[in-house]
Amino acid sequence: MPTNRTFRLASRPVGLPTRDNWTFAEEPVGEPGDGEVLVGVELLSLDPAMRGWMNDVPSYIPPVGIGEVMRALGVGRVVQSNDERFAEGDNVSGPFGIQAFAVMPADALTKIDTDLAPPEKHLSALGMVGMTAYFGLLDVGKPVGGETVVVSGAAGAVGQLVGQIAKVKGCRVVGIAGGPEKCAFVTDELGFDACIDYKGSDVGGGLQEHCPKGIDVYFDNVGGEILDAALANIAKRGRVVICGAISQYNATEALKGPANYLMLLVKHASMTGFVVFDYADRYEEGGEQMAQWLADGSVKATEDVVEGLETFPETLLKLFSGENNGKLVLAV
Amino acid sequence: MPTNRTFRLASRPVGLPTRDNWTFAEEPVGEPGDGEVLVGVELLSLDPAMRGWMNDVPSYIPPVGIGEVMRALGVGRVVQSNDERFAEGDNVSGPFGIQAFAVMPADALTKIDTDLAPPEKHLSALGMVGMTAYFGLLDVGKPVGGETVVVSGAAGAVGQLVGQIAKVKGCRVVGIAGGPEKCAFVTDELGFDACIDYKGSDVGGGLQEHCPKGIDVYFDNVGGEILDAALANIAKRGRVVICGAISQYNATEALKGPANYLMLLVKHASMTGFVVFDYADRYEEGGEQMAQWLADGSVKATEDVVEGLETFPETLLKLFSGENNGKLVLAV
Repeated sequence: MPTNRTFRLASRPVGLPTRDNWTFAEEPVGEPGDGEVLVGVELLSLDPAMRGWMNDVPSYIPPVGIGEVMRALGVGRVVQSNDERFAEGDNVSGPFGIQAFAVMPADALTKIDTDLAPPEKHLSALGMVGMTAYFGLLDVGKPVGGETVVVSGAAGAVGQLVGQIAKVKGCRVVGIAGGPEKCAFVTDELGFDACIDYKGSDVGGGLQEHCPKGIDVYFDNVGGEILDAALANIAKRGRVVICGAISQYNATEALKGPANYLMLLVKHASMTGFVVFDYADRYEEGGEQMAQWLADGSVKATEDVVEGLETFPETLLKLFSGENNGKLVLAV
Repeated sequence: MPTNRTFRLASRPVGLPTRDNWTFAEEPVGEPGDGEVLVGVELLSLDPAMRGWMNDVPSYIPPVGIGEVMRALGVGRVVQSNDERFAEGDNVSGPFGIQAFAVMPADALTKIDTDLAPPEKHLSALGMVGMTAYFGLLDVGKPVGGETVVVSGAAGAVGQLVGQIAKVKGCRVVGIAGGPEKCAFVTDELGFDACIDYKGSDVGGGLQEHCPKGIDVYFDNVGGEILDAALANIAKRGRVVICGAISQYNATEALKGPANYLMLLVKHASMTGFVVFDYADRYEEGGEQMAQWLADGSVKATEDVVEGLETFPETLLKLFSGENNGKLVLAV
């Protein structure tokens, strides 16, 4: 058997996670039992939600335990199978964790079609990121053609898909992103109607300028002051979709709630959260639609692939500094 | 013509309004023109929303201008009518303002049936308070029989109706109110299943005890820490109805948003605001239903009637100190 390389959670971070919060180890790969499959992990998805899984607080999914391999979704190839549904060489996705090899129950694996799209797309538009954008925007936000949709983290993995799907649906789309390069990417490459640089300009003023009739759907990935600015500009019967709050995940002080929440009252508006796992029984629908949009060019997905499992602790931080452009992927 | 007595807004309050914010004057009553009606005001509705109307900020309704008679709903009797739809002696309701006589366009008046219920009920269960409870709970909160409904300000005008309507709909109802007397009133007189005393006990602990399966509908009249405690206990796909935030209306520091709003994400829950005026085209439906429930005894409405127009500045403050029990009404 080959040697495995793993990142296990050593301690719970306060603020940004550092290398001290992880134990890197070389260890023997386990032997797959009956109904289990050994997978050689090739690509791992790094996501903001991982920060939440490191906290010892109850949530929609249990926290990662101290000493456990860090939870992560990935794609890889079957090395050895003790289940009739999988054969050596199959391309699969699953919750492999931050490691080079994973022994998984076959039920946790999904075959992926790498002819349909290359493996990294199965961690972006065709993976949880795509499902998050698809169901969060369409099922929670319910945009109607002609409405104004605003999305924060617009150059990020979920945000860029949300905006493009909203364009497909005939909406006017305004992004919020950090820095002129990201904003240019969002408008020039992804086709958003406008993008507000939250690092270089006043977000509230930008929203007033670009959303003169107010915001019908605000898809929030960031929380904090940007959420408040969006609430201040919400339209009558507007919908705020709470997908994440990356500005708050490493907060060491008490989380700040949206001070402008009474705009919900004034505007008869709503704020609704979701986690993508609630839509597990509709992934097939979402996957087929996203694959079609990718194929016909109406939606693009970009990935930021960083080489080297060993870089995991530092690469993860790109999410929180805003350095990544598109879906952050770690190549094992 | 008789002499009028008026309270006009003299200055905008910071924090709690004081007598200095008002000008009390005796002045001649105006002569009603064509299509206008002179009303002798008998009862005036004092409501938490009045505090918001005193601020010079855009909202669902323009602020009261400096020098204007303070806006208020009331019931009274027609003294002189220049419109064929109204005759001397008719009982009417309308936005009379804090004054003894009002000259109103006939279109702003509604006849009330004092055989159906005494005049004060037309400011509680059959007035805006009743419509707020009815549409806020049923149309925004959408409770289903067997669900757990929690309401803050449970002994207040809106809260006591919300809880009773939820009982009619077959829900388990938990109130939150200030002090043992109010809590006893809420459970013993109004029939709530439980009531948590926020002044004498831990609200979060009380919610855990009385809502072991979580809160399906939380009807919020108060905001602040109680809203956060409710969010921490929200059930999967729970609905928070934002009706008001009386704990925040006199805040002199920046309003605090609900720090636990990410529970919306974790629980796929929603938070939706409304103002009752959005339901103007359905008041008839709401009024008929409330009148029927009052008549058959399934809903009770209590009013706290304070005598004397001149007491207005001090009587208004009962809303914010929590001294009133039921709908606060000023008898002219």
